Parts: sequence; structure tokens; C-alpha cells
Amino acid sequence: MKFSKIPTATITRLSRYSRALEELEAREIKVISSEKLAQYCEVNSAQIRKDLAYFGEFGVRGVGYVVKELLFEIKKILGLNKIWRLGIIGMGNLGCALVAHSNFPKQGYEFVAAFDIDPQKIGKIVPPGFPISPLSDLKDLARQKGIEIAVISTPAVKAQEVVNLVVEVPIRGILNFAPVQLHVPEGFVVHHIDFTVKLDKLAYRLVSLNVPSPANTVLQPHLISKHLL
Amino acid sequence: MKFSKIPTATITRLSRYSRALEELEAREIKVISSEKLAQYCEVNSAQIRKDLAYFGEFGVRGVGYVVKELLFEIKKILGLNKIWRLGIIGMGNLGCALVAHSNFPKQGYEFVAAFDIDPQKIGKIVPPGFPISPLSDLKDLARQKGIEIAVISTPAVKAQEVVNLVVEVPIRGILNFAPVQLHVPEGFVVHHIDFTVKLDKLAYRLVSLNVPSPANTVLQPHLISKHLL
Repeated sequence: MKFSKIPTATITRLSRYSRALEELEAREIKVISSEKLAQYCEVNSAQIRKDLAYFGEFGVRGVGYVVKELLFEIKKILGLNKIWRLGIIGMGNLGCALVAHSNFPKQGYEFVAAFDIDPQKIGKIVPPGFPISPLSDLKDLARQKGIEIAVISTPAVKAQEVVNLVVEVPIRGILNFAPVQLHVPEGFVVHHIDFTVKLDKLAYRLVSLNVPSPANTVLQPHLISKHLL
Repeated sequence: MKFSKIPTATITRLSRYSRALEELEAREIKVISSEKLAQYCEVNSAQIRKDLAYFGEFGVRGVGYVVKELLFEIKKILGLNKIWRLGIIGMGNLGCALVAHSNFPKQGYEFVAAFDIDPQKIGKIVPPGFPISPLSDLKDLARQKGIEIAVISTPAVKAQEVVNLVVEVPIRGILNFAPVQLHVPEGFVVHHIDFTVKLDKLAYRLVSLNVPSPANTVLQPHLISKHLL
């Protein structure tokens, strides 16, 4: 398996397949054809087969995929057959929202520590059931709790400073919510979450579907519905 | 221009090109070759040319793209040559973090109203400079302020109930942060933000690069660095 040759878009789609399969499993659907799964994920079935082909042979010709098995295999491919331990730095509104968000534990991500520099916040218990620690404890706690990914939810002006501490621990994976580009030494992986990228897609769709301005206009009933997983 | 034939992935990449071009513009770079732009956006240059070809002819052979012009054209394509007016519903930690987040105005999205049902929150002034309104005012305020996109940041259990009100207004575009699948009638566009999809990519990269567990292990220095826009 040559990881380096696998397109990023394939990995993003594997994530979507995995979430779709989880939903199918919850609905007690045992087997699904690649056509049905494709429809569910809003891709074409050739794409699913091509994406999976990077990793081996899955499914039975003429039958489809066994939901439970394919889910297991995709999670293994994505490295999600384990719990990932997260430490979060910056416990403002966004940090507090993130540690309380049910998607993280549901998808195999567990917050094990939270950090801030504000004495008013330090010691406060957050939803997973541990207190906010001073940032000066990052190195010790990261080792003690085995933090694998640092989630940065500080203000933009503080983010680089915090990342400089993170790479010293070292914590190799960084998920950045701060609206700023972060610089890390070679050997670290930073992904940046920018909420507005999804808004761009939404805006484009509204424009391309010719949705009129909402104020004092008659709405046209011919627009298509779209739900992305 | 046949909008319906344009792949979603192309739109996502246009968003990335647009952000890259903004950065180049800020650095006062006037012209960029498609190879350099491709490198900057972590795609190949054929992909950029293919994506842009859906919308017309851009750039000058042997020279490249004029940064300012291409940025203008992409923004026009994405419908970002205007300010989009957002209303946000659910002013818990996440809602408060979102209205205060500098990326929205920077990218052309303006929060014009915020709603909640908690009497303790109603009337409180949020960073853009307006008070949180009771949810019962949604219809009136949406018309008055011309809300085009509703941002849902309520708890999961409340989200569908809120969306039922949103579609009655009607507001056609919905950005959903609640960890739940929302059902809307035909003619509405819902996009869902799931923070953990980016974490899946990050986890995959850490696994595929063979990053060892951080606790009591020697770290290997051969991992590549990666920054996604």
C-alpha cells in the first residue's frame, strides 16, 4: 500500500463513506450495493470502487458490501480503529463548545486535557470531567495523558506562540481553529478548519440555483434540495 | 455555463484558490504562474486549468494569472462579489464563538441577527454590535434584515425544530453546526459542518506517516510537514 499516492480527496470521501456506513449500521442495514452506497454519499459508484481499490478488494460482485465489514476496514484504513487522545488549548467560547460537542467521542476522538492561561478559567471543570490546566503544564500533562493531537482554539494572535510549545512536547498532529496560518517544523501535521469554506459552497449553490434575495421577493419553487453528510 | 455539471470538488478547490490568491495579493504579488499557484494550493497545475476551464478562459499563456483579476473572477463565480447576510440561531458557546470569529467578515459573510430562546441571553449585545433576539422574532427580523443564510448552532435535539421555522420564513440556505442530520423540503440547501472530518484526515496522516504513540517513545524525525489552507 503506497500511502503517498493516495489523493487527499479519497481520504475525505472515505470519511464520508464511514459516516454513511455508521448510519446504515444504526438502521440495521446489513448489506448495501455500491450503487446505493454511492447514492447515499452523493458520489458515483465507480468513484467508491476506485477509492477502495487503493486499499484492497472489498465487497462481493453482484451483492455489494457487508456494512459492518466495510465500516471496520475503512476505520482501520483511516486509523480510526482506536481512540485518539486530544488536548485543547484556548478555553474561550469555541474551546468550551468543542470539548462539549458530542461528535468527537462519537467519532473516536477523546479530549483528555484542556489548557488556558487565564487564572479565572484554570481549575474550572469542563464537560469531559477534568479541570482546565495552566498552559505551563502542557508538557507534563501531554506525556502523562498521552496527548496525540493538539486542538488550537486560541485567538489568532496567540496561536503561533502556543504551537511553538506544542511542537516542543512534541505533539505531532495539530488541528487549528484559529484564523491564522501556522508554521511548524518538518515532521508535524497541521490541518486548518475554516468554517467559511463550507459557506462558499453554500453561497455558490444559492447563486447557481438563482435564489432571489429574500426581502420582498417571490420565491421560486424549482430549486433542488441538497444535504451533504 | 452549465452549473449542474460542475463537480462539488471543483467548487471546494475554487474556494482554496481564492484564499491563496488573497494571501498572494496581501503579499503584493501581481502575477503567478499556474505551476506556482498549483504548488501553493497543493494541487497539480492541470487541475487548476481544468477547474477554471468550466467558467471560461483565464490567464495568459507563458505568463500566468494576474492575481487581482483571477481573484475577482473566482469570487464572482462563487457568488462572493457581495456580502452575504447571516442569521445565527443558538447562542451558546459555539454561537458566541461564531459571531465573534474574524473569518466571517473577512470572507464576505456578515452576521446581521442572532436568536435564542433563553430569556437570560435575549437582549445581550454580541460582538457585531446587535442584541440577541427571541427566536419568535425570526420571521420579522429575517425580512427586515434580509437574512440569506441561517447558521444553526443549537443543541442537536433542538436543531430540526429550528430548521422547521427557518424554512417557513423562508431562508433558503442553512449552515448546520448541530451534530444531527436535518431534513428540509425541496428547494433548500443545507450544508453540514462536522469538525471531525478534518480530524479523520489528520489521524490518517499521522498513522500513514507512522507517528509513534507519544508516551515514552522516541520520536522519528523523518515525517513530512503538511499545511492545508
